Amino acid sequence: MTFSKAPEAPTPPWHSVIPADELALYNSIGFGSQSQKPGKAALLVIDVQYRSVSSQPLPIQEAIKEYPTSCGEHGWNAVPHIRALIEAFRAAGLPVMFPHVAPKKAYDGGRWADKAPAVMTIPLRGYDFVEEVAPVEGDILLPKQHPSAFFGTPLVSYLVDNGISTVFVTGTTTSGCVRATVVDATSLGFRVVVPMEAVFDRSQTSHAVNLFDMNSKYADVMPVSEALELLRQADADPKASQGT
Amino acid sequence: MTFSKAPEAPTPPWHSVIPADELALYNSIGFGSQSQKPGKAALLVIDVQYRSVSSQPLPIQEAIKEYPTSCGEHGWNAVPHIRALIEAFRAAGLPVMFPHVAPKKAYDGGRWADKAPAVMTIPLRGYDFVEEVAPVEGDILLPKQHPSAFFGTPLVSYLVDNGISTVFVTGTTTSGCVRATVVDATSLGFRVVVPMEAVFDRSQTSHAVNLFDMNSKYADVMPVSEALELLRQADADPKASQGT
Amino acid sequence: MTFSKAPEAPTPPWHSVIPADELALYNSIGFGSQSQKPGKAALLVIDVQYRSVSSQPLPIQEAIKEYPTSCGEHGWNAVPHIRALIEAFRAAGLPVMFPHVAPKKAYDGGRWADKAPAVMTIPLRGYDFVEEVAPVEGDILLPKQHPSAFFGTPLVSYLVDNGISTVFVTGTTTSGCVRATVVDATSLGFRVVVPMEAVFDRSQTSHAVNLFDMNSKYADVMPVSEALELLRQADADPKASQGT
Amino acid sequence: MTFSKAPEAPTPPWHSVIPADELALYNSIGFGSQSQKPGKAALLVIDVQYRSVSSQPLPIQEAIKEYPTSCGEHGWNAVPHIRALIEAFRAAGLPVMFPHVAPKKAYDGGRWADKAPAVMTIPLRGYDFVEEVAPVEGDILLPKQHPSAFFGTPLVSYLVDNGISTVFVTGTTTSGCVRATVVDATSLGFRVVVPMEAVFDRSQTSHAVNLFDMNSKYADVMPVSEALELLRQADADPKASQGT
Repeated sequence: MTFSKAPEAPTPPWHSVIPADELALYNSIGFGSQSQKPGKAALLVIDVQYRSVSSQPLPIQEAIKEYPTSCGEHGWNAVPHIRALIEAFRAAGLPVMFPHVAPKKAYDGGRWADKAPAVMTIPLRGYDFVEEVAPVEGDILLPKQHPSAFFGTPLVSYLVDNGISTVFVTGTTTSGCVRATVVDATSLGFRVVVPMEAVFDRSQTSHAVNLFDMNSKYADVMPVSEALELLRQADADPKASQGT
Repeated sequence: MTFSKAPEAPTPPWHSVIPADELALYNSIGFGSQSQKPGKAALLVIDVQYRSVSSQPLPIQEAIKEYPTSCGEHGWNAVPHIRALIEAFRAAGLPVMFPHVAPKKAYDGGRWADKAPAVMTIPLRGYDFVEEVAPVEGDILLPKQHPSAFFGTPLVSYLVDNGISTVFVTGTTTSGCVRATVVDATSLGFRVVVPMEAVFDRSQTSHAVNLFDMNSKYADVMPVSEALELLRQADADPKASQGT
Repeated sequence: MTFSKAPEAPTPPWHSVIPADELALYNSIGFGSQSQKPGKAALLVIDVQYRSVSSQPLPIQEAIKEYPTSCGEHGWNAVPHIRALIEAFRAAGLPVMFPHVAPKKAYDGGRWADKAPAVMTIPLRGYDFVEEVAPVEGDILLPKQHPSAFFGTPLVSYLVDNGISTVFVTGTTTSGCVRATVVDATSLGFRVVVPMEAVFDRSQTSHAVNLFDMNSKYADVMPVSEALELLRQADADPKASQGT
Repeated sequence: MTFSKAPEAPTPPWHSVIPADELALYNSIGFGSQSQKPGKAALLVIDVQYRSVSSQPLPIQEAIKEYPTSCGEHGWNAVPHIRALIEAFRAAGLPVMFPHVAPKKAYDGGRWADKAPAVMTIPLRGYDFVEEVAPVEGDILLPKQHPSAFFGTPLVSYLVDNGISTVFVTGTTTSGCVRATVVDATSLGFRVVVPMEAVFDRSQTSHAVNLFDMNSKYADVMPVSEALELLRQADADPKASQGT
């Protein structure tokens, strides 16, 4: 989306964080133009595991007592939006892929454990998928150990093998795995859609600014309703479903 | 750095953007721990070309009239800090590498041109390195076409060949190529230092929040003075200069 | 191709090197099945520079006196075949890409210079493209420093951006950059065609066995005449040219 | 090794396949120079699962009746050599890593299933590690879906995190996963050692020629006895164990 809002759509969350003069500056440079065109799409649902949302929708300050990695109710608010997208992709016969945090082994420390030691001690049940948006038979599972869903996984091979040209990215965190995945996807030449109520994070300031960054440079950030409409258009176009 | 400031050091720019309750939340989770240990270091100077700063230090609203990609005086303010780091690395006999924007060919559009069409029409002189921080004989040049200095370049091979374990990242933009490079570097297992006055961006809000994100999860963000001190320690330690 | 030969086609060169019982073994396992289906194709012409063939078609023992990296007349024999493929791709409006050896800088030694020190001293004119198969305006240039055309280059981004599903690989050497590129292409999910008279190498034994390996596991190795026919079929099919 | 044999060492298997004039040609070009220097080493044991060797050491024509992917007795002959290397690395406190074939899911077809359909129907027990050379607690496991142990896995991150500069590659097949891994390792800047009795394949012709190719261009191919001696030297040198 460009940096004004359509009257009927939800306001992008960055409007309350990025000052007006900075928005105007980015508009004048021409950032935030739309990139999407018809093409076969795939849906990524990133890290929506109990470790990311806790077992119930608590305020985040409470939720981190169960799992320090939890975004609490910010995550639970996104779950119905993610579910709507999963259902739309399944109905259209398009692939749904689940990059997810692999349980840590002792040798998996690396740099991430240096910066956030708490990630090494999440109990195993925290790695279960949130039931409302869990994978089913036929969905593609991608365990990962680093932020980007492309890093150290065969994700790009599945996308090429399926003739995908557009990737819809949902899940968590906006400033972490979602953003790293979006940057890699766009670098690889895929068009990227981020349905904004279907991604979530801890700091709402960082969440907003990361959506701003992604919309300016890497992805088409839009309301879920608009993303669903875009999917219907692509799906209705017989040429589109055959790729670029 | 952790989320309180040392009395003598410059305040991290995110302190004026990220609300106090969010800072407290991240502290309670344990984000932002320090990762650096002795080890052989390399310096990356990313995209410090005239297209990123304009030919003189103008306010950014003026600077974008010369090059729409310019950060104007924000860039010029960083140049002396970057130069100090370059000199320290050269004095220590450590590698200095220049990932930089390759001039665009017609076939280089891709997703980036979709989002920011102005990047396709920068005149050729805009790709020249800023003289004050330009590469010299022996420095490693890495033309690139995507945000991360690792994407589509042989950067990782140079780092492994040189036995590097820590990467210092400088240049521009904080929210763009710097951040994408930092995420890849940490995913690859390198320790990452971001000297905070040596990176720059357009939106100062986005600049601050990206430093916050990187310090929380991927890098040790610190004042240039502290980065130089860290380098002196690593260099003084004979074991350190032989790698991990 | 499977491991028997069609009556009219050239004999695959591995038939004189791989013993009959090993061919029978691979047939009984089912290796060498055909993978190609309609889809948009791109042509790679790898390293066809004077350093790879010398300035004239000499026996290789003579040719290496001009450039130690030369394959001499083995290379010149392939040039008309490569040219036929380039012309067919251009006529069909399909992309032609030129991964090529970038001139070496002092810091480019790495492992390759350890194994074959002579590669570091090739004079600059050796890096020129062979005139008969040189790139023209609009072709995509990919300087590289390692065997695979994908390693440290943005090749995959160009393929995704162009909606390519099948890659035709030509050039040199069969056992070096061609094979490394083929393995990466197939791992990434692309279908791979190797037109067998359009690739070349130094050792004809190694050339033959590498064609055998690629045909068994990674690519459809076939005569150039068959590759051109396959291209005509893909091009004639309107669905095919829109990708998978 | 260079292309003459030391009197006491086993003859490299390519000597019976590559004609003398081709060996002489490669010697005159300078291929096959040695690259190893002291440095911290890691051991890779690739795909030594029952699917690669069958449950007992049968001739390969029999072994493929149990698993079409089996190399039969060629694999069993290598097992004691691999075991000797594993024990030496464990004794030296150096990392041992097990890239291995992940059991196939229906969506894992891709190009590999096109070329060798039999790989999709291996029963689950075929994926078990061969007991004599199975991983123990602390070894690093890397499930993979493509030939190279680096492709779609976080292997490079583990190597960087551990300060590794030299990789010893063992397992199977010489012409498949071993070679693809060796090419990536050398491209990434690691020194590569291939202990020649510790790798195995189906076709002994292809096995020999792939060792020749790797020794010429990418790796130091040597007898296991020499590889163990090299490891002892590296380990005895205090500087070496700290990396390059």
